[in-house]
Amino acid sequence: MTSTLVLLRHGESEWNALNLFTGWVDVALSEKGRAEAARGGELLAEAGILPDVVHTSLLRRAITTAHLALDAADRHWIPVRRSWRLNERHYGALQGKDKKQTLAEFGEEQFMLWRRSYDVPPPQIELGSEFSQDADPRYADLGADAPRTECLQDVVTRMLPYWEEAVVPDLRAGKVVLLAAHGNSLRALVKHLDGISDADIAALNIPTGIPLLYRLDDDLRPVQAGGEYLDPEAAKEAAAAVASQGR
Amino acid sequence: MTSTLVLLRHGESEWNALNLFTGWVDVALSEKGRAEAARGGELLAEAGILPDVVHTSLLRRAITTAHLALDAADRHWIPVRRSWRLNERHYGALQGKDKKQTLAEFGEEQFMLWRRSYDVPPPQIELGSEFSQDADPRYADLGADAPRTECLQDVVTRMLPYWEEAVVPDLRAGKVVLLAAHGNSLRALVKHLDGISDADIAALNIPTGIPLLYRLDDDLRPVQAGGEYLDPEAAKEAAAAVASQGR
Repeated sequence: MTSTLVLLRHGESEWNALNLFTGWVDVALSEKGRAEAARGGELLAEAGILPDVVHTSLLRRAITTAHLALDAADRHWIPVRRSWRLNERHYGALQGKDKKQTLAEFGEEQFMLWRRSYDVPPPQIELGSEFSQDADPRYADLGADAPRTECLQDVVTRMLPYWEEAVVPDLRAGKVVLLAAHGNSLRALVKHLDGISDADIAALNIPTGIPLLYRLDDDLRPVQAGGEYLDPEAAKEAAAAVASQGR
Repeated sequence: MTSTLVLLRHGESEWNALNLFTGWVDVALSEKGRAEAARGGELLAEAGILPDVVHTSLLRRAITTAHLALDAADRHWIPVRRSWRLNERHYGALQGKDKKQTLAEFGEEQFMLWRRSYDVPPPQIELGSEFSQDADPRYADLGADAPRTECLQDVVTRMLPYWEEAVVPDLRAGKVVLLAAHGNSLRALVKHLDGISDADIAALNIPTGIPLLYRLDDDLRPVQAGGEYLDPEAAKEAAAAVASQGR
């Protein structure tokens, strides 16, 4: 029996639109992002993929995306689980900075290392600074373990325990699982599911608002490598646009 | 130590605005209702009442109200629990009917019995009819136990087990609990909390979108009978308007 998993990257946020590094800063969806989220839900309904449970990060752009998509698919009433482990990568001292300015200031090589290397995190964010989350009550339980910057490898490391302990049991129970999260937490999961190498994951971009469907076999390996976007043409165009950010 | 419970009736729905009996029909909030919900969240934030967990019904007008209120209060990330036991009263064969027409057709006495008597339910809804929920997947687990009409007494009977098993443990754990629900499921709870008689509950109206705060003592009895609306003036006006519906 195959399990059904749907990954959904949040729609465009106000800071995606402004081309700022966001990370754990809790910005809202833009109007375009809200429309993308609702469209994502319509795609689910049209495909007859009806989630039985939804998992989200603790960030409002993923939470609102899940709400709008599920409302559009008439599945707003399903159980909800949330975890910081599905959060976007913490972008450290880059949070709140303009992507274009950062590229100009630090140069192409450093910029691409921070954005796409597997194991080079940006500098740590300063505690108490404007875009730090150290006083945020939702992370109070993490204490000193709360990240102050992350590379993609760090995201894989903190995301996988939630995958194993919270998401896999739902899949094993035969539930259709919707996972509403972020560019990098979803890249971390796709890397795990598809067995993508540390080097090759750099080239993988996940577009906003287009459900990515995985059918998983008994070993939770994808029946089709890379899954299947419910709107493949739109996904292709959007992925190309993500890849050129900051240019 | 007192426990903190906040009751929030959903904002105006599209059918409140049209003056139709709604019950379990899953209508959306009106634009006014969305604004009420966000205002409810602002009132929470201004009062420094920050929910740690939210419980909702399975109906989108309560779910969206919770989402918008918590987003406005910056508490969108808290855990969510949902249950059909918090649903609005099932209005039976009246679901989808115009309140004014129903008053004209059946007369004041019968109309008020159905609306406000404690133990007289409307006629059962016909299975398979337009406004019946018998094919709705969210109630599939209920099987033949799914209600086809309810009086307020029925709502008390099905709501209290959820109160005891799901809400009370959160209060005992010291959590600030937000309960986003409906006119009659909240009346049922208030009847229980304040020990209101079967006769006197008829006169109690709960306005939409205004948080109703209860501080509860160790026996979970209200420190102040009737609790405290976070916007008492608006609550008074709105309760008067609810009482005159169908006139």
